[in-house]
Amino acid sequence: MSKAIPKRSENYSEWYNELVKKAGLAENSAVRGCMVIKPYGYAIWEKMQRALDDMFKATGHVNAYFPLFVPKSFLEKEEEHATGFAKECAVVTHYRLKSNPEGKGLIVDPEAKLEEELIVRPTSETIIWNTYRNWIQSWRDLPILINQWANVVRWEMRTRIFLRTAEFLWQEGHTAHATREEAIEEAQKMLDVYAEFAEKWMALPVVKGVKTPNERFAGAEETYCIEALMQDGKALQAGTSHFLGQNFAKSFDVQFMNKEGKLEYAWATSWGVSTRLMGALIMAHSDDEGLVLPPRLAPLQVVIIPIYKGEEELAKVSERVEPIIADLKRRGITVKYDDDDKQRSGWKFAEYELKGVPVRLAMGMRDVQNNTIEVARRDTLTKQTLPIEGIVDHVENLLDEIQQNIYRKALKFREENTFLVDTWDEFKERIEKGGFILAHWDGTSETEEKIKEETKATIRCIPLDAKQEEGRCVYSGKPSKRRVLFARAY
Amino acid sequence: MSKAIPKRSENYSEWYNELVKKAGLAENSAVRGCMVIKPYGYAIWEKMQRALDDMFKATGHVNAYFPLFVPKSFLEKEEEHATGFAKECAVVTHYRLKSNPEGKGLIVDPEAKLEEELIVRPTSETIIWNTYRNWIQSWRDLPILINQWANVVRWEMRTRIFLRTAEFLWQEGHTAHATREEAIEEAQKMLDVYAEFAEKWMALPVVKGVKTPNERFAGAEETYCIEALMQDGKALQAGTSHFLGQNFAKSFDVQFMNKEGKLEYAWATSWGVSTRLMGALIMAHSDDEGLVLPPRLAPLQVVIIPIYKGEEELAKVSERVEPIIADLKRRGITVKYDDDDKQRSGWKFAEYELKGVPVRLAMGMRDVQNNTIEVARRDTLTKQTLPIEGIVDHVENLLDEIQQNIYRKALKFREENTFLVDTWDEFKERIEKGGFILAHWDGTSETEEKIKEETKATIRCIPLDAKQEEGRCVYSGKPSKRRVLFARAY
Repeated sequence: MSKAIPKRSENYSEWYNELVKKAGLAENSAVRGCMVIKPYGYAIWEKMQRALDDMFKATGHVNAYFPLFVPKSFLEKEEEHATGFAKECAVVTHYRLKSNPEGKGLIVDPEAKLEEELIVRPTSETIIWNTYRNWIQSWRDLPILINQWANVVRWEMRTRIFLRTAEFLWQEGHTAHATREEAIEEAQKMLDVYAEFAEKWMALPVVKGVKTPNERFAGAEETYCIEALMQDGKALQAGTSHFLGQNFAKSFDVQFMNKEGKLEYAWATSWGVSTRLMGALIMAHSDDEGLVLPPRLAPLQVVIIPIYKGEEELAKVSERVEPIIADLKRRGITVKYDDDDKQRSGWKFAEYELKGVPVRLAMGMRDVQNNTIEVARRDTLTKQTLPIEGIVDHVENLLDEIQQNIYRKALKFREENTFLVDTWDEFKERIEKGGFILAHWDGTSETEEKIKEETKATIRCIPLDAKQEEGRCVYSGKPSKRRVLFARAY
Repeated sequence: MSKAIPKRSENYSEWYNELVKKAGLAENSAVRGCMVIKPYGYAIWEKMQRALDDMFKATGHVNAYFPLFVPKSFLEKEEEHATGFAKECAVVTHYRLKSNPEGKGLIVDPEAKLEEELIVRPTSETIIWNTYRNWIQSWRDLPILINQWANVVRWEMRTRIFLRTAEFLWQEGHTAHATREEAIEEAQKMLDVYAEFAEKWMALPVVKGVKTPNERFAGAEETYCIEALMQDGKALQAGTSHFLGQNFAKSFDVQFMNKEGKLEYAWATSWGVSTRLMGALIMAHSDDEGLVLPPRLAPLQVVIIPIYKGEEELAKVSERVEPIIADLKRRGITVKYDDDDKQRSGWKFAEYELKGVPVRLAMGMRDVQNNTIEVARRDTLTKQTLPIEGIVDHVENLLDEIQQNIYRKALKFREENTFLVDTWDEFKERIEKGGFILAHWDGTSETEEKIKEETKATIRCIPLDAKQEEGRCVYSGKPSKRRVLFARAY
């Protein structure tokens, strides 16, 4: 079959690239590092957006929109933030082109140079906090609970579709609060929202934790994160939520009159997930036949394929299938009846497997005679023939079962690939094979950096549920009070 | 009241600016010409997006996402298109900042100059048709029916919030077809979708027409448009749909094998509406008290305000109101019960009038005794006291009635302000007073330009329903076969 993709076991990286391409999810564009998200990929992203947006609104947030451009002077204001993003900024310097006086085409008009360069937002803390200054005068104006769906640009040198692209789509929440405690609570609440979305919608088990100072967002006092394990044993950071303290309020002079009548700087959070989640979704569940999508995010949940020769047989199948389609739709299940006669059923089977459609129904003449239908599930690649009666109930339950099963499978994989490691030799050996390593760490950046240098492993997070446990740092042998999560990561 | 806005009759322009600000819709940002869309304004835009997106999908379109950046060489390829957009391009020339070696802050790193400048998309025909080249080989690959929700940048010199901003949000449909006829049909179909959205959702009557060659989109063979009349007598172009012929296919070499086995260039359309519609919505319906929103686009459709003194009275009102709220919500009507005791009811009344909430219910102690409730409608600013029994049915019907009434009112206004004009003197006099003018035109660009120079009026469109009618050009006296629509425009 022409659509075949490499096996995961042979070349995981190529498997991913080919799958993204052949399943019609996305492709590289003519602009370095920028991707085209194709309709099927975008349909999955839309489902993610809708689910997340509902969760944000249910937790009291509203959407708004802030400018694409950040004046260079804004970026400079918060020093760590500036240092963190300066190296990957797309810079707008001019606002006009003109005809080339010396030949064909257009040139940048040197007369149209901006007084101050504009940065295409890599993230919007600065432009948003500059705006909040005018919105926040009193404690009565707080909290501000705003989210934005937007594109951002970070000029990454090595890009990888969905996982690391120069332009990507995301949402960024930016909240302002009257107290430190309330801001921390917000940052943690949104981490919980992300974890719930990952587990309930993406069927992706995640470890909730905090980043070490080295791995914090530039400008944050604390970065919370969710970390997932991919099938090749590498970790993927699936979402972050930052407690920003008063850093941005101070840089942009956002003060409010508190209940005691005193001026105080506002407390901030920001939190985001991006189209990177598409990469996580693909790499966590899919197999050598193609995509495996959790039903709650599948653009198409059920496909029905008639097996027939000639119009008359097709008509018989269609007649049986019609009430099933109507009933599925009534229940809010997305279904497609693929009676396109330009493709053979074998080709269709492979195509929908590649695209990860959770449930495939097929009906041939024997089924018509026997009042049966063939039900195939994508997650296990198994099938069975069932009576037509009750089939819609069965499919509805099956979609739930598939959603659960994909999660259980990923959880089992993670459990089998999470290791308690206590010696440096074991660590070095283990990290080569992939997986999460829970090991003691002495809490210093020095040790963290040395481990990274020697093994390419980073501390993914200090898990929120880490037990207090006396131990010795796997690298330095110094005392440690709890294990942290190491892995090589995307 | 501090929230008062200027009267339309005194200063329409200031009325608009203040209304946008005081109703919390949007504000200017620190970046020249770029706006911040505030939560209440964005909530309206989200309702527009949802309705339009559903209509696009119902007509067979799917969403996708293409890069923010357009290489300069792409823009150059279609000559008219290039000329049309060159003067208002935000140009990215560098991809990195660095610490200023001579002092504080960041400077653009001269080492990080792009080989080819990137333009922040002013529209995406070029980047999309460059992509379509790889997607289109055979007639079987056609049609491609794709839409994109995105931000775009056009460096306008004179900006006006929502109406003309350097960055705006929009959707842009880009379709590819095997035949000229099919592409024209698509462009017309999407014009109909826009007109239906304007009339059914925005309650905005529009004239469907085609642009004169002078007013066409840069690169189009035909531009269809919908034109609306604002309350100050100026026209506003509310949406455009372009038949692009084979221009972009030729510029980007997009050829396909047709059914006869011959290579042919693909046929294109593009169509878009933007956050400009927010301006149209505001200017078409609102009054001196504030926004008037059609219920189908109002983020909040019903507000309920208790009139009380003390907790005990409030409890009595709340008890009566609770089942009403529950019933409204069950019917999918958005409702807010505003029992905030920090504000007086008079302040609340004015506030919700300013924000254009279509229906306001108020209940005081007399109502509690009499089993009644006060119902006020925003469109007519009238109110009546009604029995509680049946109130939810009444409100549901009232929302429909308000939707209809706003449309009828706008239609009546347009009809009363559309004039058949046959002499140049009358034209010059009439145009000063505003409104649509239907007049004969000789069909030449020269005359069109002279009329514009002398009166600032432009040909908004040649209405699709224009009758064949012998006449003489209002300016040149030369023969004409039908009237065209003139107005001063936003």
